Amino acid sequence: MKGTTKSDQKKESARVELFSDGVFAIAITLLVLDLIQILHPETEDDLLTVCLHHWQSFLAFFIGFTTILVCWINHHVAFEFIQKVDTKFMWVNGFLLFVVTLTPFPTAILAEYLQKESTVALAVFGFNYILISFAANGICTYAYNHQLVSDEDRVYFNSYRQIYRYGIYYTIVVFFICFISTWVAVFLYILLFAAFAAPKELTARLENLRTGKKSKSAINKAQQVDENENDLAGHTSNEMEQGS
Amino acid sequence: MKGTTKSDQKKESARVELFSDGVFAIAITLLVLDLIQILHPETEDDLLTVCLHHWQSFLAFFIGFTTILVCWINHHVAFEFIQKVDTKFMWVNGFLLFVVTLTPFPTAILAEYLQKESTVALAVFGFNYILISFAANGICTYAYNHQLVSDEDRVYFNSYRQIYRYGIYYTIVVFFICFISTWVAVFLYILLFAAFAAPKELTARLENLRTGKKSKSAINKAQQVDENENDLAGHTSNEMEQGS
Amino acid sequence: MKGTTKSDQKKESARVELFSDGVFAIAITLLVLDLIQILHPETEDDLLTVCLHHWQSFLAFFIGFTTILVCWINHHVAFEFIQKVDTKFMWVNGFLLFVVTLTPFPTAILAEYLQKESTVALAVFGFNYILISFAANGICTYAYNHQLVSDEDRVYFNSYRQIYRYGIYYTIVVFFICFISTWVAVFLYILLFAAFAAPKELTARLENLRTGKKSKSAINKAQQVDENENDLAGHTSNEMEQGS
Amino acid sequence: MKGTTKSDQKKESARVELFSDGVFAIAITLLVLDLIQILHPETEDDLLTVCLHHWQSFLAFFIGFTTILVCWINHHVAFEFIQKVDTKFMWVNGFLLFVVTLTPFPTAILAEYLQKESTVALAVFGFNYILISFAANGICTYAYNHQLVSDEDRVYFNSYRQIYRYGIYYTIVVFFICFISTWVAVFLYILLFAAFAAPKELTARLENLRTGKKSKSAINKAQQVDENENDLAGHTSNEMEQGS
Repeated sequence: MKGTTKSDQKKESARVELFSDGVFAIAITLLVLDLIQILHPETEDDLLTVCLHHWQSFLAFFIGFTTILVCWINHHVAFEFIQKVDTKFMWVNGFLLFVVTLTPFPTAILAEYLQKESTVALAVFGFNYILISFAANGICTYAYNHQLVSDEDRVYFNSYRQIYRYGIYYTIVVFFICFISTWVAVFLYILLFAAFAAPKELTARLENLRTGKKSKSAINKAQQVDENENDLAGHTSNEMEQGS
Repeated sequence: MKGTTKSDQKKESARVELFSDGVFAIAITLLVLDLIQILHPETEDDLLTVCLHHWQSFLAFFIGFTTILVCWINHHVAFEFIQKVDTKFMWVNGFLLFVVTLTPFPTAILAEYLQKESTVALAVFGFNYILISFAANGICTYAYNHQLVSDEDRVYFNSYRQIYRYGIYYTIVVFFICFISTWVAVFLYILLFAAFAAPKELTARLENLRTGKKSKSAINKAQQVDENENDLAGHTSNEMEQGS
Repeated sequence: MKGTTKSDQKKESARVELFSDGVFAIAITLLVLDLIQILHPETEDDLLTVCLHHWQSFLAFFIGFTTILVCWINHHVAFEFIQKVDTKFMWVNGFLLFVVTLTPFPTAILAEYLQKESTVALAVFGFNYILISFAANGICTYAYNHQLVSDEDRVYFNSYRQIYRYGIYYTIVVFFICFISTWVAVFLYILLFAAFAAPKELTARLENLRTGKKSKSAINKAQQVDENENDLAGHTSNEMEQGS
Repeated sequence: MKGTTKSDQKKESARVELFSDGVFAIAITLLVLDLIQILHPETEDDLLTVCLHHWQSFLAFFIGFTTILVCWINHHVAFEFIQKVDTKFMWVNGFLLFVVTLTPFPTAILAEYLQKESTVALAVFGFNYILISFAANGICTYAYNHQLVSDEDRVYFNSYRQIYRYGIYYTIVVFFICFISTWVAVFLYILLFAAFAAPKELTARLENLRTGKKSKSAINKAQQVDENENDLAGHTSNEMEQGS
């Protein structure tokens, strides 16, 4: 501690990152336990019948996995900018870990109740998304307000953290839509996934929308940084197919 | 090994930290497995009834999660000061890991027996807290007595480790109170959580109490170090709400 | 982020590696849970009878463990060359993690259905291998096409990634053979394991086959690098026995 | 890869270490799942009766935990000396991980069958110890024979790896004793634990025995290195009590 040099601070935030990574990795892998349970039925059905009969378990596994992976990718991007941590930040981050740790539970609800009570099952999962949005926004906003981000990144990080604020509004609206039409809600959740699958690209797109492509100077520097990555994201999808 | 330079020692303690982090992360995530089990009942109740009927499982999950997170934060702060490790220290640390690994068990007891035998269930969990206090005190005292802490941190670390000694007395007293009144015990445990949620701030506060705000010179240097963090902790809570 | 120096990029890929390692480690360890379940039968058989009666569970544990270990070793070798990551790469890597996370499920199927429906159980596991080959090929091809590999390694990495392309063809063919003869399929899978147990040596061998030992110049440099390792792999197996 | 500098090699062995740590951490934490299972009985017994009735589960948990912790400490010490890894070493290490991953299974056998068939249950656990000894000896011998240890550590590492060779003989003998008298076997296993709890001190003691305290020059340098640690281990146990 003594002088808490810059490298010490970095090490601190690295340990929080590591512990979080561990929690993400375990939560994402525990999902399979619920899938294995379908294999111990009392009935004498053959394997394919058992699997087909539990198609919701596979769907739930896929949804739960994607949810936690999207969370991890966003957490990962946020920690690229976060240079140091303090005690309160560990609690804000702890709230996100709480929600991530809890995620296998709504996933199991999906698997068990999707056919019987689809609306309630989806609403529970939707409520989980609201909590995730609040946690993600909390992390970014706390880091921004308490100077845990280095000075040169502040402008970009400010526009970056906006996407989680929008995320809160979005997930709350979809939560209520879910009681009107589950199918519309499902469609909107897929859109949500697609957007947050690549948080940096989403940030750039929303900035463009907001500034109306007029005064892009604010995020110009930030975009320059991500130029390579955006380039890749924009133009190379066919290159990939051809290459494989 | 050869010359065991300073960076080698640091690497050593880093590996103990990493392994401990892994154990913390897994223990905290395994808690959800007990929650998922409530979803496979023989009854034909609907989802909300099942969830409401098992409210103790949710409470136990929350308590277990918070317990392990508080342990992790305190472990994390202690390892900021610990510069090297020896074989015996790995066993002292191993005792803490033993208690942490065991924690999902009293958590499951809470979930299962909170209604039927609330006093015994709470006492088991309270006993777990006594063990944690002993383990935390053991780690800090061993590190202090065997010069595993760098010289410039010794004075501060000495006042830091006191909080775990007080923790032992406190948890033992509350353990017995628990047999007189569960509600008073619950209240005192919440106080305990709140105090150890921010171990550095707790250390500073206890130092102030002990020295009667007269001879603060001893921990002056230490406080200087944590100035930023204490500042944040003290004045910026409303800033945060406003920012989010 | 700012200038995203080389060390920053390396740190990025290191974190993806770490998270992946966590998922591998958990998936490989969860396999034992299925093994433990055979110990809670309703029957009053003695221990040895129970164990012998569930020999497929032990076999499945062994197969599942080896599968994930081979995946980890190959992942490990690929990441020796990968210097940086982008958002899309995290999704390609995420697909591999998805398949690895799923692996305990076909393993449990093997344990449960190997006697009752050996062909279907093996086919499910074989399908898992096809997915793994696609994922491994996807990671290497994406990294190659998007310059995530350093320039000096490109030539070697190109011949390295070929083994996963061959892997796709191989696993698809064996998948269909499995419906004709399970025993031939099992034999071919053992060959597959043996080959991918040491991916660098496999690369060198396939290169030699393809070039007909004529124009070996292309991979010469690469082989020079691995000289020590190939030496070890080639000549020292008897040395080891003698030493132990 | 290109020039595979020394720091690259170190990074390689660090990743193997990390993955192994993950497996150790998970295996040690999964043990609690078997403990939680005793809480879901069909009977209406109260909590203390349930716990007392399953005292073997607690004993098994304690034994399993200590076993894996001892393995981890020994693995940790061995990797202090191992500077680089090759493909075959990953398989030798993989065999140790296989045994560690398997350990929760004999632990569950202890919990379930200790009363009904104590000899067989203990023999299964003893067989596990034989496998662990073989794996530990395999790792050290392979690392020694293939120059994965730096030159200045070779002499010390050679005497270090001897303890695992003795471990093989010891565990095989105790395995057979177990069929004659379980109590003698249990006593000998406790001795084994105590010895391998501090592998460096054990090495020093065995060296002294072998050389008859005459020609200690060979390990002199090595002991010098560990002087601090041996000092601590030797003289400060009462200091610790006094300090806590």
